[in-house]
Amino acid sequence: MQKISKDDVWKYKKYVCRAKCFDITAGGKIIVLNEQEAHQNDLYASHRVILRSGGKQSIAIVDVSNDLVQAGQIGLFAEVSSELGVSDNAHVEIVHMQRPDSIEFIKKKMDGKALAKEEIETIMRELMQNRLSEAELASFITSVYIRGMSEDEVVGLTQSVVSTGETLQLGRHPICDKHCIGGVAGNRTTMVIVPIIAAAGLYIPKTSSRSITSASGTADTMEVLCDVSLEIDEMRDIVKKAHGCVVWGGALRLASADDKLIKIRNPLSLDPRGVMLASILAKKKSVGAEHVIIDIPIGRGAKVPDKAEANDLGREFINIGKRLGMKIEVLVTDGSEPIGNGIGPSLECIDVLSVLNNIGPLDLRDKSCQLAGALLELSGKVKKGRGNDIAVQLLKSGKALAKFREIVELQGGKHNLKLSDIPVARYKHKVLADKEGRVFHIDNKMISKVARAAGAPNDHEAGILLMCERGDRVKKGDVLYEIHSSSESKLDFAIKALEGWTAVDLERAVLSSMD
Amino acid sequence: MQKISKDDVWKYKKYVCRAKCFDITAGGKIIVLNEQEAHQNDLYASHRVILRSGGKQSIAIVDVSNDLVQAGQIGLFAEVSSELGVSDNAHVEIVHMQRPDSIEFIKKKMDGKALAKEEIETIMRELMQNRLSEAELASFITSVYIRGMSEDEVVGLTQSVVSTGETLQLGRHPICDKHCIGGVAGNRTTMVIVPIIAAAGLYIPKTSSRSITSASGTADTMEVLCDVSLEIDEMRDIVKKAHGCVVWGGALRLASADDKLIKIRNPLSLDPRGVMLASILAKKKSVGAEHVIIDIPIGRGAKVPDKAEANDLGREFINIGKRLGMKIEVLVTDGSEPIGNGIGPSLECIDVLSVLNNIGPLDLRDKSCQLAGALLELSGKVKKGRGNDIAVQLLKSGKALAKFREIVELQGGKHNLKLSDIPVARYKHKVLADKEGRVFHIDNKMISKVARAAGAPNDHEAGILLMCERGDRVKKGDVLYEIHSSSESKLDFAIKALEGWTAVDLERAVLSSMD
Repeated sequence: MQKISKDDVWKYKKYVCRAKCFDITAGGKIIVLNEQEAHQNDLYASHRVILRSGGKQSIAIVDVSNDLVQAGQIGLFAEVSSELGVSDNAHVEIVHMQRPDSIEFIKKKMDGKALAKEEIETIMRELMQNRLSEAELASFITSVYIRGMSEDEVVGLTQSVVSTGETLQLGRHPICDKHCIGGVAGNRTTMVIVPIIAAAGLYIPKTSSRSITSASGTADTMEVLCDVSLEIDEMRDIVKKAHGCVVWGGALRLASADDKLIKIRNPLSLDPRGVMLASILAKKKSVGAEHVIIDIPIGRGAKVPDKAEANDLGREFINIGKRLGMKIEVLVTDGSEPIGNGIGPSLECIDVLSVLNNIGPLDLRDKSCQLAGALLELSGKVKKGRGNDIAVQLLKSGKALAKFREIVELQGGKHNLKLSDIPVARYKHKVLADKEGRVFHIDNKMISKVARAAGAPNDHEAGILLMCERGDRVKKGDVLYEIHSSSESKLDFAIKALEGWTAVDLERAVLSSMD
Repeated sequence: MQKISKDDVWKYKKYVCRAKCFDITAGGKIIVLNEQEAHQNDLYASHRVILRSGGKQSIAIVDVSNDLVQAGQIGLFAEVSSELGVSDNAHVEIVHMQRPDSIEFIKKKMDGKALAKEEIETIMRELMQNRLSEAELASFITSVYIRGMSEDEVVGLTQSVVSTGETLQLGRHPICDKHCIGGVAGNRTTMVIVPIIAAAGLYIPKTSSRSITSASGTADTMEVLCDVSLEIDEMRDIVKKAHGCVVWGGALRLASADDKLIKIRNPLSLDPRGVMLASILAKKKSVGAEHVIIDIPIGRGAKVPDKAEANDLGREFINIGKRLGMKIEVLVTDGSEPIGNGIGPSLECIDVLSVLNNIGPLDLRDKSCQLAGALLELSGKVKKGRGNDIAVQLLKSGKALAKFREIVELQGGKHNLKLSDIPVARYKHKVLADKEGRVFHIDNKMISKVARAAGAPNDHEAGILLMCERGDRVKKGDVLYEIHSSSESKLDFAIKALEGWTAVDLERAVLSSMD
């Protein structure tokens, strides 16, 4: 007997309706069919259909209604009517669609079997075609979370994600890049490393992200100084001129499938290791990176809890990077406390510019130079053991500052940027020590929460200015930190939010047995 | 330090907008906020908010738009505006909502840990409150599929599902019920068993489902004769009078959470065993069933492939049933071929009424009597070994037919229903044997597909009338089956759909080594 796919029968099925356009968006490609007519045609809510009209076609998800559309009508939200280019009463052909091939592969993963490269490619392709529902994607991510992914699968996923998007095609070498696993407040090393690497004559086309739950992402902080939403051609031109840039990755179309995957990962707070690795490496690969430093912060409150796990993760980065043609070095750093004094876009800019002016916070300066130095060594530009010194020299000589100013200006910022150009918040509130003691812990997450409550990152000037660091002895009434905001009510809100919790812990007089 | 939940900070957050009503449904409780304003308030797409207006409140999912709504406006689709009872320009307060508690428990299941009863209850409660997104639910079902569920968890899930809905509260005893795992075309035993059990003086408040992928569900078939969309009070009255009924479960609010779970299970074709067990048993429990027969068909094309797996599943039914206070017996039956002659609502009614008139297909009659007999024995009404005989007697005496007519009439159907009352399709097409041979296999899925292509189950008269059974010798040109439809074009469509596949297999002259 000839083998019949479950859905072959539908290849004959189609019917024609007249468009009824709703001039609003539905947040997805949704059409509304008359319930009775849809059922007569074996279409039910959440089925997929192909729509054809005047030579154009679109894929959409069916919703049904008894009163919204009559038999013979198809209700179109703006996403679909604009794609088809139709207006009211246009003829639209509705064709039953075969089930996405991905569903079989998602079930295969669910059942604990490894996916072949072509199967992963199919999932990414159908994801990009909007053929997969949120539920199907969530099912995929959940399966990957539970079943894990082999090195082969991560390589396949990375390549598939890269192929869904644009690539930078810089045409210059060597191309360097860096990535931090994140979670450390104020950790703006990127904005120091990029000018150092660029000043050393290497290329570093850096894409950064905006904040999701933190007080600021590198893209948010850089945006205080200049435009970060660049087109890929503008980015390429700037990197060719200045050897570096700091732009928002979200505005480009690099590794597009990843942006769609992230939408599912966020609400569930799921970040399966295989998907995380592929997501990071696809972004590096799509700018053509050859030498990459990965910063893995560990410690209390960091995403990676300890050295052993950081080493495991690091080895995976290195091995998979090698198979993708990238030389990767991993630095495990202390991420238990914030870096720098400022947390929030403007305050972080002040730290960065201070470091470039050789007057900034030492922790930010030292960490940036170590990472930049490792990247210089990895690229072969400088000898092993000399990277940090060269990086410090590029800072001291003012070459890194000059390079940073050049990049800011090319990205549409001020000429000859100075510290005094950075806006400072109008409203401030000092948080005082309520007893004598020693600063025992400064909590990344709490600091971020207070900064967000004060308006960061949308209010650039909002944030926290730390006045103490771990180990400092303080007296009752000493200032621990300032909360900044450009809105008085937001400042009040942040102060209220503080009730009941502590961002800066003072050591207890009596040792308690619990942390 | 006081323990702070990740979302406590938002308890202070709310803002007020003016309603802009879109007079259309969105297929879910979705609101549209101005993108910039939403972000300033730390709200992003897919966040949940509580909406308050004029003393009413609703929970909705945020969508954002740059041009659809201005700052200060909230776009409301019909689902939300009707729930809040607001029209344009009404003040709506938007309150940040804490993350559903379920997310933690879904992750716990993902991580392979068993869920406590209260945790399962929380998931079902939040599901009913529409607080869980499709992605979150899909993630839950996927986790249960991969990780499985312990007996304790299934008991907890069943009880939670029961408690989300109404219960019948019949107040009469003993209450019997039956369930078939499904997948067998034409298998309308329920419509024969219910009148037999009711005629024997027991109670059988039967809820049935509509077809999802088959040619007809019991509810679709019964609907040819009478109303099946009853309210729970009507159902109770009928069962008190007639001792039985056959109604559509979907119209009642029994085990409501299950209807929501099914929506997720269908698109993914996922039916994790634990969820399936809970889903079936919750429906039995919610009508107060004490004695339940479960029919598990096995064989080629059936949902359960073999006897060993049927026994495993059966044991789980029995054990979990015991813990829920239900006495369960499991019958493993042959499900490799259709039962009865007709497939499709009207044609199945003809089979059922023929059996009740003692002229019907023997396979449907025998299976129904065996199942009814087992239920009579299980309830203690008749002695072990006598059930089948008593069931046959109730058929032969015409008592079952009288009872069936009583039920049909109480459900709004004709008085004194006769075979000639059942409508027959106008258009028919005979499918002939293309060679001499012996009927080797009649395929449930293929038969269903042809019947659906002809219009079943929405076209009641559409379907297949089998003219042969497995083992029959046929000559070239003999009629294998008829396709029925009340629409000529649908009939043509079904004939076209048949090209290339075979619903009735004829044995090959030469034995092949492959099936």
